Amino acid sequence: MKPQRGWDTPASPTEAQAHGSADELTRYYVSVREQSAQLCEPLEIEDFGVQPMADASPPKWHLAHTTWFFETFILREFVPGYAVFHPKFEYLFNSYYNGVGEPYPRPRRGYLSRPTVAEVMAYREHVDQHMQELLDSADAEDVQARTVLGLHHEQQHQELLLTDLKYNFGNNPLYPAYGGSCADAGESPAALTFTTFDGGIVAVGHNTADGFAFDNELPRHEVLLQPFLLADRLVTNSEFLDFVDDGGYERADLWLSEGWSTVQAAGWQAPLYWVHEDGQWCEYRLDGLHPLQGNLPVVHVSAHEAFAYATWAGLRLPTEFEWEHASNVAVEPGSFVEDGVYHPQAARGSGLGQMFGDVWEWTSSSYGPYPGYAPLPGTLGEYNGKFMSSQLVLRGGSTATPGSHIRASYRNFFYPPDRWQFSGIRLAKHIE
Amino acid sequence: MKPQRGWDTPASPTEAQAHGSADELTRYYVSVREQSAQLCEPLEIEDFGVQPMADASPPKWHLAHTTWFFETFILREFVPGYAVFHPKFEYLFNSYYNGVGEPYPRPRRGYLSRPTVAEVMAYREHVDQHMQELLDSADAEDVQARTVLGLHHEQQHQELLLTDLKYNFGNNPLYPAYGGSCADAGESPAALTFTTFDGGIVAVGHNTADGFAFDNELPRHEVLLQPFLLADRLVTNSEFLDFVDDGGYERADLWLSEGWSTVQAAGWQAPLYWVHEDGQWCEYRLDGLHPLQGNLPVVHVSAHEAFAYATWAGLRLPTEFEWEHASNVAVEPGSFVEDGVYHPQAARGSGLGQMFGDVWEWTSSSYGPYPGYAPLPGTLGEYNGKFMSSQLVLRGGSTATPGSHIRASYRNFFYPPDRWQFSGIRLAKHIE
Amino acid sequence: MKPQRGWDTPASPTEAQAHGSADELTRYYVSVREQSAQLCEPLEIEDFGVQPMADASPPKWHLAHTTWFFETFILREFVPGYAVFHPKFEYLFNSYYNGVGEPYPRPRRGYLSRPTVAEVMAYREHVDQHMQELLDSADAEDVQARTVLGLHHEQQHQELLLTDLKYNFGNNPLYPAYGGSCADAGESPAALTFTTFDGGIVAVGHNTADGFAFDNELPRHEVLLQPFLLADRLVTNSEFLDFVDDGGYERADLWLSEGWSTVQAAGWQAPLYWVHEDGQWCEYRLDGLHPLQGNLPVVHVSAHEAFAYATWAGLRLPTEFEWEHASNVAVEPGSFVEDGVYHPQAARGSGLGQMFGDVWEWTSSSYGPYPGYAPLPGTLGEYNGKFMSSQLVLRGGSTATPGSHIRASYRNFFYPPDRWQFSGIRLAKHIE
Amino acid sequence: MKPQRGWDTPASPTEAQAHGSADELTRYYVSVREQSAQLCEPLEIEDFGVQPMADASPPKWHLAHTTWFFETFILREFVPGYAVFHPKFEYLFNSYYNGVGEPYPRPRRGYLSRPTVAEVMAYREHVDQHMQELLDSADAEDVQARTVLGLHHEQQHQELLLTDLKYNFGNNPLYPAYGGSCADAGESPAALTFTTFDGGIVAVGHNTADGFAFDNELPRHEVLLQPFLLADRLVTNSEFLDFVDDGGYERADLWLSEGWSTVQAAGWQAPLYWVHEDGQWCEYRLDGLHPLQGNLPVVHVSAHEAFAYATWAGLRLPTEFEWEHASNVAVEPGSFVEDGVYHPQAARGSGLGQMFGDVWEWTSSSYGPYPGYAPLPGTLGEYNGKFMSSQLVLRGGSTATPGSHIRASYRNFFYPPDRWQFSGIRLAKHIE
Repeated sequence: MKPQRGWDTPASPTEAQAHGSADELTRYYVSVREQSAQLCEPLEIEDFGVQPMADASPPKWHLAHTTWFFETFILREFVPGYAVFHPKFEYLFNSYYNGVGEPYPRPRRGYLSRPTVAEVMAYREHVDQHMQELLDSADAEDVQARTVLGLHHEQQHQELLLTDLKYNFGNNPLYPAYGGSCADAGESPAALTFTTFDGGIVAVGHNTADGFAFDNELPRHEVLLQPFLLADRLVTNSEFLDFVDDGGYERADLWLSEGWSTVQAAGWQAPLYWVHEDGQWCEYRLDGLHPLQGNLPVVHVSAHEAFAYATWAGLRLPTEFEWEHASNVAVEPGSFVEDGVYHPQAARGSGLGQMFGDVWEWTSSSYGPYPGYAPLPGTLGEYNGKFMSSQLVLRGGSTATPGSHIRASYRNFFYPPDRWQFSGIRLAKHIE
Repeated sequence: MKPQRGWDTPASPTEAQAHGSADELTRYYVSVREQSAQLCEPLEIEDFGVQPMADASPPKWHLAHTTWFFETFILREFVPGYAVFHPKFEYLFNSYYNGVGEPYPRPRRGYLSRPTVAEVMAYREHVDQHMQELLDSADAEDVQARTVLGLHHEQQHQELLLTDLKYNFGNNPLYPAYGGSCADAGESPAALTFTTFDGGIVAVGHNTADGFAFDNELPRHEVLLQPFLLADRLVTNSEFLDFVDDGGYERADLWLSEGWSTVQAAGWQAPLYWVHEDGQWCEYRLDGLHPLQGNLPVVHVSAHEAFAYATWAGLRLPTEFEWEHASNVAVEPGSFVEDGVYHPQAARGSGLGQMFGDVWEWTSSSYGPYPGYAPLPGTLGEYNGKFMSSQLVLRGGSTATPGSHIRASYRNFFYPPDRWQFSGIRLAKHIE
Repeated sequence: MKPQRGWDTPASPTEAQAHGSADELTRYYVSVREQSAQLCEPLEIEDFGVQPMADASPPKWHLAHTTWFFETFILREFVPGYAVFHPKFEYLFNSYYNGVGEPYPRPRRGYLSRPTVAEVMAYREHVDQHMQELLDSADAEDVQARTVLGLHHEQQHQELLLTDLKYNFGNNPLYPAYGGSCADAGESPAALTFTTFDGGIVAVGHNTADGFAFDNELPRHEVLLQPFLLADRLVTNSEFLDFVDDGGYERADLWLSEGWSTVQAAGWQAPLYWVHEDGQWCEYRLDGLHPLQGNLPVVHVSAHEAFAYATWAGLRLPTEFEWEHASNVAVEPGSFVEDGVYHPQAARGSGLGQMFGDVWEWTSSSYGPYPGYAPLPGTLGEYNGKFMSSQLVLRGGSTATPGSHIRASYRNFFYPPDRWQFSGIRLAKHIE
Repeated sequence: MKPQRGWDTPASPTEAQAHGSADELTRYYVSVREQSAQLCEPLEIEDFGVQPMADASPPKWHLAHTTWFFETFILREFVPGYAVFHPKFEYLFNSYYNGVGEPYPRPRRGYLSRPTVAEVMAYREHVDQHMQELLDSADAEDVQARTVLGLHHEQQHQELLLTDLKYNFGNNPLYPAYGGSCADAGESPAALTFTTFDGGIVAVGHNTADGFAFDNELPRHEVLLQPFLLADRLVTNSEFLDFVDDGGYERADLWLSEGWSTVQAAGWQAPLYWVHEDGQWCEYRLDGLHPLQGNLPVVHVSAHEAFAYATWAGLRLPTEFEWEHASNVAVEPGSFVEDGVYHPQAARGSGLGQMFGDVWEWTSSSYGPYPGYAPLPGTLGEYNGKFMSSQLVLRGGSTATPGSHIRASYRNFFYPPDRWQFSGIRLAKHIE
């Protein structure tokens, strides 16, 4: 299944690159870059600078850092005599590339009232102009490959910009709305059904003939799966509420040891944006604070909560390879960022649904290298490989993911206690 | 000596109240409130929201909190049927008054991108309008007294707004300038001279006949002083640099135990805004980063650094009562915020100079209650009294203090390691 | 009043030194050193090594450190060719003297299973033998003065050994008993009476003609006191229980801001060793866990609790100079360590009682230098002076203090939240 | 290959249980329990109570906790009317079983000077007596199975007792020796050779017909391996020293991101017990501090160091299934605890050596459940399953492991930064 939704742009960067058309790549460059700016349209100037926790960077930082990526890895390397926009931006907007020098400390990104939003926008224009000139003139495969990488990088930060902004708004007692809307389809989700998979030797990982992928999706290789069942839809709010009401957050026996420690230390009693007000559960969504809608997918749960829920339900989470193998028979996807709803939607239809979009699905697989994995050469090798410890893989993209950005082999990764991403739960079951 | 500099307003709030003129009080109200707005004129919208450390609140918060003070302690109590501007502001902009309920957590003030600056300005206008109506109509002494208190409170926050903003700008690698300027008067300060005081029984504390004072300056009472010498000017940058160059930050024997622990834990090597760049010492001032000017007063040192310097120099810090007694013979004051220089200036002339303005002067006196001290009744009793532990008294006001706000009996107080205020060093000596 | 109780030794070290008798000093040396060993008799080997918090050193460490003091400051300086007992002990048993090199980290004292107790006892014997040889042969005033200092130092650590051991036992769910006993004298304390003092100029600090004192008690000087009342006895458990039952630990308005933060962060609900078991309050004492005895003095309260109690009672704590001045008319003292009860006893008789012994009494005075204070020369100057920040003075000694160690001018000092010392409350009142 | 070395006991618990002989089980019970006491023979009483970090429990605690395990899960469940030795031991010596109630806080285990060592030994005798009576009388398979589990549990704690004691001694500046000895076999290790494996579908996990295994080794199942090479011996000190000398601890590009953060935060510059003294590298071993022996295996490295070393060497760590599959052709094992050397020995001979014993070998596999994994029922289900997050699997046992305790399917697990276990490095390589 091809997860992408319709775009008003001619092609994804992968296809543009595959077709070798510099013109298409330029158009795609412009399109993705504009998408970042469009996502910021509902913001006030004040919203651009806030970093409500170390992991949630300010929108302004995302806008600057994605620009820094093009400047650092393309313009400075491939444009002779290129003059940087500002000499200190190399330091200020480096995220974590030790090969480019000591980055500005992550927890301090929210302290940078300067450069202003206007200055960051000027930075973007400066780099865009030089990038377009370069794309027009250069046929070099390196430039094109890095441009495509830079655009996928920017798409990742578009999603982060939304999740980080949501963390800001969702923790502000005023609960400001960003936008989107969320139709409700009744309280009762359909009974949970499962699709059966036989197991056996299957191929996983990206097929390089299919265009762009990150290095962590390679090389494609074979794995052996046991037979398993995979749920046809995501766990819903009303199902998760049953877990809450059954004392799920008070029962140590349901949790991994680290999860239980986190529950106690952080005082978790419900998913991240659930708010108990005036005797009822509400949920902060990007369209504001609303009464909890039972048939929407539960979202913003950590892997620990996903694990505890699955244990309580007598089931388990899928492995990343079970998920990837199953995605071959996925039916209609859920929402993507282009849909403008900014919240996962209720399941529809039958068959293996919601595999792409709506929520990132926690798997039980730790994030590690595939057999024969080789990171990109040079400093860009820091992009993915150095994070292969202590994290878990999530699959499928979310309502905040650009539809053109996701694919079956795509591996997202976060720490088990993380829950500010649009992360949810799909259940699986071992077949004896 | 009267420390005040010229104002374009008719009188200080103290005098306005003393004269019993509602009209004057209103004019003073308007004047002080406008001063807050004027101090923000050089700011970009982005600068209003930043809280670069827990103690350094965002400018927007200062603007809202001072307004909250009038709304909470005057309008809500004295205007029947007064409708608050926003129901959640009582919570959001409460600083530390437990009597008004649990305050919004201090370290999270910088996460509030909403309300916007425009909304906070509207809040100010709303409250100003109601305050002026009340002042026009009410003769109640309570209302007038609390209004005067509120204006002194606002003046305190004007200074904090500047020091907090300086902490933001001074830690931004771009070192943005706020404004002001700082003339240099040559490298070499005049040799240090001292004024001699005989000691004996002297009266300290505020004389209630002289108008407004905070509760912590009362009651006026007698203390017994030993004979002492007090330096006629502040310690300068070049003098402090001698201490640095002599290994002052590496010699445990010069420091109090807590100070030495702080030096090691924080890695202090110089005063807060000294930056070693390209082989020379620079200092960040509100007019930008400049080479260190030797004859300017050293500023932004902690009490621990002041103590270590004094020990190194074979001298000591004065007690708060020595300082207060000596201030009776003070000559020309230093700079105040109305001077618009925003940085302490070089000493001029002879005699006991710079006692008021330029820098807050650390004393060796812990901040405690005077004999018979009684805090204000009710929730306003939390204003000063509950902070009487572990802090030291500073005296005299600084270049960021409104000149109409300071007086000889005024007691400022900070923790010994604090150094983001305009705090400096005046030396004293025991006479055998 | 002379606070000392009867000893089986001829004289206090102070008097021994004053009389210039080397023989008496030697006898006193032996006596004090033996007292340390006697205090350890009830201990099991396992008890010697435990450090239940950073501030509570293991008994073994106290035994070694006090020995290190004699070796470092006397034997190594005054005995030519003296061979240290072990080359690494200089490092291991240095408490905080930077002049002797980097001390072994305080929080790790409990990790030193070696040297064993037997080895530490051999260390003591080694040093005692050399000390006695030196005292027999030397008339040097330096040696005698440092020996007397070392003996007072050892007496301080005898008290700490007991309080640190109590913290260990009192936090062990088995509540082991050390020894002592605690007669109860009925539930109801006598009604609280006060002694009146007129104020005026009084002399405070040690009179050097009276023998030994620490440098922080000097120089004797005059201060001006306002008239005041001082309570004739300590606050009792039953009186403090009234405060607890009245919600004292839940009312922010009774506490200093730092105290309230501590209450919330540490979850304080009662004094340190009060344990609520089976529906009643018990108190861990060195003779075990027992039902709370109402007429015993409340003990193991922080200065914050003392302040909050006094505020609740409409009274205040005395200053250290009020206390010292009042001690001139003190009647019968309370218990000292020689009494072997190891817990403060109920008040007896009339007049200003319990001023010495029973509990250290929190004052409202911060610990600072007297006018003209000069620390001891050299490394021994680190003994007292460098701690003169953020601490409060306590006066009078406790049930764990050797009676020969205390005097009217004696200044003990701890941080406001500390409560593992035998610290209690005496109330005072301002007279208008 | 059978990794066990010679024992003076008739059979391993697994075999005893397999043979169904109660008599053999009793003899094995006695043998294992005695082994714990024997390991403590070199200790002084003072050594039994020290907990030098939260993870390193005191020897006394290990002796009591293993006893608690038999009392809690066997005697209390299977002996009607059994009277516990002490009512508070259930709480004091519970490690992490929430099903038995809130455990005594782990970081406070070192604060329990009571019960004494003698009391703990009496506890052991009490439980041993009742266990032997039960084993004599009961044929119940439950009792036997839990006894075997309890003995394997005790063997695990025997190893931990040694590693925790080593952490204590190795961080004591006196570097006390425990025992053992370590023959050196010359400076130069043999050149590194590899054994080739073809990959394909292989079975992993424990075969239940072969006797005891922990639940985490089950169920046996098939996995698909790619072809790979596995090093025939462990990485040596001299090889690791090359990494150190090549700036291995200063090059961010060699490390996983978490590893690099740990290096910087903890200041790592070499493996845990390497000490640079007098210009040369020494290593603390259980036989004391000695000059580093180049041909001994490097030990006490974290997974991060193992990963960085492998990256530097252009190789990688094996997966746990590669390791398990390869172990089928392992030749002579290294040292086990029964050998009494207490330190890994130099490689000998040719072929795939040192797979069992000497050091635990870090794998790149995260510790997770096998397909169809089911924890033990009830509270014992907390034994292994709840730790299946964020940890990595180590294989093969160490010089501190009882030889009868290890097997090819055995999965040990620790966090990537942990290095106080006897953990080392075996290299692997992908074959294209």
